[in-house]
Amino acid sequence: MKKIPHRIYLNEEQMPKQWYNLRADMKELPDPMLNPQTLKPATEEDLYPVFCKELAHQELDSQTRYVDIPEEIQEFYKMYRPSPLIRAYELEKALGTPAKIYYKFEGNNTSGSHKLNSAVAQVYYAKKQGLKSLTTETGAGQWGTALAEACAFFGMDLTVYMVKASYEQKPFRKSIIQTFDGKVIASPSDTTEAGRKILAENPNTGGSLGCAISEAVETAVNTPDCRYVLGSVLNQVLLHQSIIGEECKIAMEMIDEYPDIVIGCAGGGSNLGGLIGPYMRDKLTGKANPRIIAVEPASCPSLTRGKYAYDYCDTGRITPMARMYTLGCGFIPSPNHAGGLRYHGMSPILSKLYHDGYMEAVSVEQSKVFEAAVLFAKKETILPAPESAHAIRAAINEALKCKETGEAKTILFGLTGTGYFDMSAYTSYLEGRMTDYIPTDEDLQKGFAGLPKIPGIQE
Amino acid sequence: MKKIPHRIYLNEEQMPKQWYNLRADMKELPDPMLNPQTLKPATEEDLYPVFCKELAHQELDSQTRYVDIPEEIQEFYKMYRPSPLIRAYELEKALGTPAKIYYKFEGNNTSGSHKLNSAVAQVYYAKKQGLKSLTTETGAGQWGTALAEACAFFGMDLTVYMVKASYEQKPFRKSIIQTFDGKVIASPSDTTEAGRKILAENPNTGGSLGCAISEAVETAVNTPDCRYVLGSVLNQVLLHQSIIGEECKIAMEMIDEYPDIVIGCAGGGSNLGGLIGPYMRDKLTGKANPRIIAVEPASCPSLTRGKYAYDYCDTGRITPMARMYTLGCGFIPSPNHAGGLRYHGMSPILSKLYHDGYMEAVSVEQSKVFEAAVLFAKKETILPAPESAHAIRAAINEALKCKETGEAKTILFGLTGTGYFDMSAYTSYLEGRMTDYIPTDEDLQKGFAGLPKIPGIQE
Repeated sequence: MKKIPHRIYLNEEQMPKQWYNLRADMKELPDPMLNPQTLKPATEEDLYPVFCKELAHQELDSQTRYVDIPEEIQEFYKMYRPSPLIRAYELEKALGTPAKIYYKFEGNNTSGSHKLNSAVAQVYYAKKQGLKSLTTETGAGQWGTALAEACAFFGMDLTVYMVKASYEQKPFRKSIIQTFDGKVIASPSDTTEAGRKILAENPNTGGSLGCAISEAVETAVNTPDCRYVLGSVLNQVLLHQSIIGEECKIAMEMIDEYPDIVIGCAGGGSNLGGLIGPYMRDKLTGKANPRIIAVEPASCPSLTRGKYAYDYCDTGRITPMARMYTLGCGFIPSPNHAGGLRYHGMSPILSKLYHDGYMEAVSVEQSKVFEAAVLFAKKETILPAPESAHAIRAAINEALKCKETGEAKTILFGLTGTGYFDMSAYTSYLEGRMTDYIPTDEDLQKGFAGLPKIPGIQE
Repeated sequence: MKKIPHRIYLNEEQMPKQWYNLRADMKELPDPMLNPQTLKPATEEDLYPVFCKELAHQELDSQTRYVDIPEEIQEFYKMYRPSPLIRAYELEKALGTPAKIYYKFEGNNTSGSHKLNSAVAQVYYAKKQGLKSLTTETGAGQWGTALAEACAFFGMDLTVYMVKASYEQKPFRKSIIQTFDGKVIASPSDTTEAGRKILAENPNTGGSLGCAISEAVETAVNTPDCRYVLGSVLNQVLLHQSIIGEECKIAMEMIDEYPDIVIGCAGGGSNLGGLIGPYMRDKLTGKANPRIIAVEPASCPSLTRGKYAYDYCDTGRITPMARMYTLGCGFIPSPNHAGGLRYHGMSPILSKLYHDGYMEAVSVEQSKVFEAAVLFAKKETILPAPESAHAIRAAINEALKCKETGEAKTILFGLTGTGYFDMSAYTSYLEGRMTDYIPTDEDLQKGFAGLPKIPGIQE
């Protein structure tokens, strides 16, 4: 048998020309987003103050199965895509597993992650509508970097509210965003109503994504020709990120492989939702039945320990409400949690699929995650982002199970990015200073207590 | 005409299986390395205390034109190679040039540079000889990272002497080397005779590559089963780095292109020497006559302002002497010089080719280099290493000349790596704090005054 190459690249002709909209194949759709004023399902018009028109449309369009990728975005993709599908021969050898391990590596671009896939789309549509500036939040900094790259390319002003804990842990993330002309503000800040309120209640907070979102949305709606963009959670983001899975499917077909298990880390769901597209499609349409596993941090366990409920997308409670697995919009992960995957909720699409039994979820502790990251780096020569290393941890666990049972399963995981800006966390792990944190049930109850009451829907 | 793709990748079958030894095609060979004790040409045996046997052989073998790449190294290469050849469509557009600009991008691996190509080879041969540990120096940190990756992979202990200025500017470089189990010592240090001597003379020095080399060599020769390895300058390094040029040639043939101009940054010459292989071969054998341009920092101008003379490879004067363009082994670039390309000398092979008129050299000031880097990042979405940006600067200059003349030249440059660990320098540039430094003739005279006297050869 011919040996499968280490790296499989599509050529430009093979690259997908359409994004895939998972909702079109779902038996039951996620519950609609609610307008927080009217408590009625949000319309596209309701979203216009926050999102540009085309993105508002994509957010609510659950019908169109395949969406043409505009020519300009395809051209941009060609600067850093296709991303390679890589066979982890050396990791397999190190584990002594009969499993075949593949990973789709999205870190080979300057944002250091898959985030650029949606950033370019969101900036493109905003530019096309004639907008002048954008606001966003960033946690680990990958989304902020990706968006700054896209904004610099298309000529659009950008303000990034960066979660204060990350801002302090990762000074160079700020620098790289600034290199691409992005303005960076540590959140919570005194530049917004929402930020001032949070600071007044908790002056020493390290911030959270939910809080940074409040600030970014508030600034967007109060600035002419400005809109807000978000790097995860949203339906539109999963649509754009479907490029990952669609490329992956073609690459795996080229080597006659099909995954038994598909694994992705999950914070808001942007990478996982993009990676699993074709495999979830096969599940939904009855063509195949791979296991699909979301991996989340034990310190921010929205799927495994959250509630499936309507909640605000932000801490300041100004966004529409979405039904999703949530820890409550006031939830802030422990400060010792390194890296991203710190959002209180989960993509409504993924939440619904999980709720309906199409997906599994596991949570992992960060010391085990870094242990996997270091092993992976030494064997596969790529230093993974802490976020991505959650998927590595779960993939290793599955591969070790195969070693027990002797099964030669095909495992596919998403390696979302690189850890070059996470060296403080690596050092803390290497020096034995890294601690794990698992919220108690009591901790979680506090978050749940803040879930909104919606007459007739959620009492 | 069919549009040339943005990225051209070879498949595994197309990947070169041999390194190319430029010396085999040179009309005149570089002058031999001299044993500093005997002042006679160094033999392989002379080099055994410092280099493992196979590498000592490669260092002195000027005859073998093509060297088989061992199977294990080929397998390792497949984890991160082939590197892409990229058409810089967006940079061309931004410059409004009729030139076609291509770059061979070596930064898509965790070392962040081309350095891994030689690191894996040097560690492999040392391991095969049964050695237990290695020492080296690192300046910008890419070589130290690459070597740590290769050592972790093959299971070899590593001590890295890191130029103190970089050690302080780039704390995370230290962390990443440590992640791969490398031991990092700021140089000059008190762990060696050479380091203590340099510290005694100049306690506040930021160090230099030459000084770190002295320390690494001293430690290697005083430690059982230990050898020294170097990431540039040496003939063996150019041999291993030839993988860059050989891949590039195949990729360019796939799109029916041949460069009119080949550009590479040059510190010790590892990247430039590797990239230009096939094009210099064509020049030497009369098949073609592309321009070949070495780009160096104005602050460390060994080719453009150095002397072609025998000199030590290290500051402590314990290594063999090589005839090369040199600023004198005591030369230390101004502390405001950011990034690598800070070696006092230049690869003897490249020095000879330059001396014999096969190559041009230019020097560029760092503020112009960072200006080019930021433009490139915004248009091509890759944040370049400061070293690589020297080549970008020269490529842009050539492309702008084409704009003047209307010539549609084909320009190829080497993009050696990424700048993720250079954000302090970027920030300093963005904040207007970056200054240029050009040594005066008087400064250079001090370095030249220290050139060794060799009876009958160099008085």
